Amino acid sequence: MENFNFYSPTEFVFGKEREAECGALVKKYGGTKVLIHYGSGSAVRSGLLDRVKKSLEEQGIAYVELGGVQPNPRDTKIYEGIELCRKEGVDFILSVGGGSCIDSSKGIALGVPYEGDFWDFYGTGKAVEKALPIGTVLTIAAAGSEGSGASVVTKEDGMLKRDVGSDLLRPRFSVLNPELTCTLPAYQTACGATDIMAHVFERYFTNTKEVEITDRLCEAVLLTMIKETPRVMEDPNNYEARANIMWAGTVAHNDIVGVGRSQDWNSHGLEHELSGLYDCAHGAGLAVVMPAWMEYVMQHDVMRFAQAAVRVWGCEMNFANPEATAKEGIAAFRKFLVSIGMPINFEQLGAKEEDIPKLVEVLGIGDGVRGGFMELNAEDVANIYKIAAHATV
Amino acid sequence: MENFNFYSPTEFVFGKEREAECGALVKKYGGTKVLIHYGSGSAVRSGLLDRVKKSLEEQGIAYVELGGVQPNPRDTKIYEGIELCRKEGVDFILSVGGGSCIDSSKGIALGVPYEGDFWDFYGTGKAVEKALPIGTVLTIAAAGSEGSGASVVTKEDGMLKRDVGSDLLRPRFSVLNPELTCTLPAYQTACGATDIMAHVFERYFTNTKEVEITDRLCEAVLLTMIKETPRVMEDPNNYEARANIMWAGTVAHNDIVGVGRSQDWNSHGLEHELSGLYDCAHGAGLAVVMPAWMEYVMQHDVMRFAQAAVRVWGCEMNFANPEATAKEGIAAFRKFLVSIGMPINFEQLGAKEEDIPKLVEVLGIGDGVRGGFMELNAEDVANIYKIAAHATV
Repeated sequence: MENFNFYSPTEFVFGKEREAECGALVKKYGGTKVLIHYGSGSAVRSGLLDRVKKSLEEQGIAYVELGGVQPNPRDTKIYEGIELCRKEGVDFILSVGGGSCIDSSKGIALGVPYEGDFWDFYGTGKAVEKALPIGTVLTIAAAGSEGSGASVVTKEDGMLKRDVGSDLLRPRFSVLNPELTCTLPAYQTACGATDIMAHVFERYFTNTKEVEITDRLCEAVLLTMIKETPRVMEDPNNYEARANIMWAGTVAHNDIVGVGRSQDWNSHGLEHELSGLYDCAHGAGLAVVMPAWMEYVMQHDVMRFAQAAVRVWGCEMNFANPEATAKEGIAAFRKFLVSIGMPINFEQLGAKEEDIPKLVEVLGIGDGVRGGFMELNAEDVANIYKIAAHATV
Repeated sequence: MENFNFYSPTEFVFGKEREAECGALVKKYGGTKVLIHYGSGSAVRSGLLDRVKKSLEEQGIAYVELGGVQPNPRDTKIYEGIELCRKEGVDFILSVGGGSCIDSSKGIALGVPYEGDFWDFYGTGKAVEKALPIGTVLTIAAAGSEGSGASVVTKEDGMLKRDVGSDLLRPRFSVLNPELTCTLPAYQTACGATDIMAHVFERYFTNTKEVEITDRLCEAVLLTMIKETPRVMEDPNNYEARANIMWAGTVAHNDIVGVGRSQDWNSHGLEHELSGLYDCAHGAGLAVVMPAWMEYVMQHDVMRFAQAAVRVWGCEMNFANPEATAKEGIAAFRKFLVSIGMPINFEQLGAKEEDIPKLVEVLGIGDGVRGGFMELNAEDVANIYKIAAHATV
């Protein structure tokens, strides 16, 4: 096992009607003037925003609002948020929405106390030294941003999708009420489930040996998703299934299932170029890219893929031919994705094979390689996109 | 799933030689005058204490020392610690040892700023409102106190073992270096492993339905322990196995494997009277009591015990007779305990059947019941002790 630090200080406030506690939570964590940041009109229409405001008002906490965060959140909205926070003297950001909204909030949080351009931190590794505190009210189980220190933002000029990570960006609290996710369209629910599973698989395929505890925790989350996701697709109002998925989404990405070893994240990297170029849903892009990546890198460690097939997908181990078992696991993943309505190839996603050179170029590998479970050069990446282009079940 | 809060703000600093970072960590979390609290001479003899002191000195942090914490830590040592801290103006407690040492540190931490008797908080439910910050350097994987808000202390007068819990008692940081556990005697290692597994089982046997994610996370930790414990018994210097067990011990008790549902804790309650009366190791007491408790309550939910048998112990499901599978799982647990050198009955533990009325009396049920997976009255408890008295494999 490799040395590691694990730090997940967020207070998770989970269950029915817990958004009523927002005001008290903001107060507990020192907020006196709040920016309520949100995305689509659904938070308004559902009455959620009103309940959040009421909760702040009950505690005598002043607030301003900024809505309109798009999926694949843009830098332009963040500039707007930073200016508003400075003008209004905001000292706490309350993010009401999904991963895009929370990631946008994190961009604002680090931008307000920083004199330069907030974009300086994205994709550069520049260390965040200060950020406003954040709280979240999550409305979709997917990105895990409610428990992570990461933020992914798209620069509108050139549609560049880049990320930043810092413990300072971990929310002080996150309200997780599974009821809020019951009204999500099936496609968004499935995209979220795919993202959650991808967060685990990125950590599962590692070159570090003998980290059984992390393997088993990964498998625990994946087994849960495989059981609960179809139940939600069948009955969107199944609270128990929604609750299991929502908590699985947080556990999948606060790194408790990733510590002590190398991780991959190449599927996320390759996907970011897809959603950057086509503005598709992140989860849908992952459904196309991740199994293709698996097929391509499988030979690097067949037994690890066989382990996933047996322990996660319930395949019978073929002791005479472990490779067959490994392939069976990847096929089971694709079948699962299809069963919940996800695309698995370029056509279904709305991507074009002739764009592959462009996708590879924007990824910016040049003559180098991307590290991970298996090092990938530009040709490898093109090959993975090609597999993804034509995949079938 | 039941509503819950999950809050585990401790920074875990895991891996080889990480105790060298103690000084920087104390500084990060605001300590300026430290009490180094430790147990046996082994922390001194191994040079660990010297390394910790050196790390504090390098940061210019002053300290005083208090050693001699016993297993099943006593109130008397805590009174001593409180007095010393007040006299010396200590503002941070650094606990170098195992669960007993950390639990003793927590008693001191809540006692220093409290005007009354620190014992007021133990076994009474009285809320802790203030406590000194704590850091730990863990030397045995067992109690999980390094990541929990709980403390269990024995009052010497009457040997009463009682507990307290508060988020204020959660360590600010915990250094987990598996190397430090390589010199532990086999018996202590096995006691620790038993305690870890018991922490999971207390959370596994629940009456709350459909919390698949928590079930699976429980199973993940148990499967890890079943794989890694025999490897450590065979080779005490197996770093990878020690590392898996150490992290499993933390994960088992910061409540990530317990949220969203009712828990039991009757085995711990019944064990506390054993180690209170006979001063035996907590893990050894659990090895005797817990399988007996399982046998006694199994009928309350046979299918849950069958699930444990199949998913944790690898038993084949007997679809015609699930009860047989459930029993097979409990038998597998006892066999496992015997294989790692644990006692499984009163004689092996050094307990006496004729003391059962006394054990039941001290537990203080009276005419009432103890809540949990199955409610237990005084007669039930006596029956469980009787099963434990005579257990065999």
